Amino acid sequence: MSETIGFIGLGRLGLPMATNLLQAGYALRVYNRTASKAEPLVAQGAQLVERPADVATSGGIVATIVWDDAALESIVMSDGFLEKLGAGGVHIAMSTILPETSKRLAALHAQHGCIYVEAPIFGRPEAAIAHNLWIPFAGPQQAKDRVRPLLQAMGGKGIFDFGEEIGAANIVKLVGNFLIVSAGHSIREALAMARNNGVDPKAVIDMLTSTLFSAPIYQSYGQRVAELSTPFTSAIPLKDVGLFKRTSQQVEISTPIADLLYDILQSA
Amino acid sequence: MSETIGFIGLGRLGLPMATNLLQAGYALRVYNRTASKAEPLVAQGAQLVERPADVATSGGIVATIVWDDAALESIVMSDGFLEKLGAGGVHIAMSTILPETSKRLAALHAQHGCIYVEAPIFGRPEAAIAHNLWIPFAGPQQAKDRVRPLLQAMGGKGIFDFGEEIGAANIVKLVGNFLIVSAGHSIREALAMARNNGVDPKAVIDMLTSTLFSAPIYQSYGQRVAELSTPFTSAIPLKDVGLFKRTSQQVEISTPIADLLYDILQSA
Repeated sequence: MSETIGFIGLGRLGLPMATNLLQAGYALRVYNRTASKAEPLVAQGAQLVERPADVATSGGIVATIVWDDAALESIVMSDGFLEKLGAGGVHIAMSTILPETSKRLAALHAQHGCIYVEAPIFGRPEAAIAHNLWIPFAGPQQAKDRVRPLLQAMGGKGIFDFGEEIGAANIVKLVGNFLIVSAGHSIREALAMARNNGVDPKAVIDMLTSTLFSAPIYQSYGQRVAELSTPFTSAIPLKDVGLFKRTSQQVEISTPIADLLYDILQSA
Repeated sequence: MSETIGFIGLGRLGLPMATNLLQAGYALRVYNRTASKAEPLVAQGAQLVERPADVATSGGIVATIVWDDAALESIVMSDGFLEKLGAGGVHIAMSTILPETSKRLAALHAQHGCIYVEAPIFGRPEAAIAHNLWIPFAGPQQAKDRVRPLLQAMGGKGIFDFGEEIGAANIVKLVGNFLIVSAGHSIREALAMARNNGVDPKAVIDMLTSTLFSAPIYQSYGQRVAELSTPFTSAIPLKDVGLFKRTSQQVEISTPIADLLYDILQSA
């Protein structure tokens, strides 16, 4: 448990996941663009460094969870990052990005003898705190075996193996996020119809989520939409539905529902 | 249990529900536009009649489950139907129809001293056979108390009371069917993206329906979509999304997702 892990990206999801690692007994070297966000971790013993490359130990493990493709690429391309990670070093890339970006980064890692594992995270910050995250992952088997306990320590309740082909885990993540956004907007449209016709949306969602739609997504979004009619404000849906569209366009799949959701999100 | 119940509509859902009633010990008087569909029930002791009105006994109970608003209205307006049902007679209307049609029919019943209860059915024919139907209902409390055991005998696993205001149960049904159609089409779009990017749709749906989307609708539709890419052929989605749209338009709610689904279904 005394292995030192590098951790980059202390956002709403990264911070509780890094905290879980510390609490599981791992030593942490952390980097964040806005350094002040590391304070709670430093107070618990994490070492804050000034450059992404400084989180890495040769042959060790670095986990990253940053906003988008560009942010992840800028870390990987930053001075000395891959050199310091070195031969046998493993990078667990937990951001939701394009499968093709993931593939390109994996190839770059290979050039330096490093191993790239993609492990995008399903779950809200509360789920990270509650160790209730769902994680699809893909990459070389040996590296996945090495990082699995780490993903569990970060809060992964279920870790799902999508093989060795890089890109697969991000495809699963984009499929899941598209379905989440579609469900959320459909619930909103459905409950507006009920509410405006004089039927209590809470009674409707209580029935549906105890029967046909007895799933966490419908239960949590349904209750939120039934209780308050304010729109969600996260920028994640627009970003991820955009990635879903691009990944579909590359294989010439038409995606009318994703297209509509993207337009709705963009004009919101 | 020896009460004679009138039952009209022996379609894919009506037939197993009527069969359940017979098996629970009720005597049945049945009518169906295509009389031959009643044969299995007649073989089990049901009495087949020639006109809708002939299923009714004065002050008794008649259940109907027919295709649409027009079919239900033609039964209610048919010669002698409301007269024969008479004072204190209860009509359980189980078709999925417009809330406003339901209200209009309820008023017509009241003029004859009959009571109208709406109880549209969530469930496929297999669910009827398995006594696994979900039923929202609305209407006068006393009549609901009277028909509840009957709905359970027909296959209702859960019966959900949406008050005395007629229209509410059909609003719940239209909300539910819209969410089902939206989920089904979203799953299809999502799994096409995965499949065409080389990721096994079955593995994706297995992960998602054991985690975030662990609900019957996602599990059943997801497996169907993952296993075969043929489109669904039922005419129900187009009809019911159309009713959802109309019910929304009446209260000036915009429904971009329902509009899109309707267009997709119409051009299929």
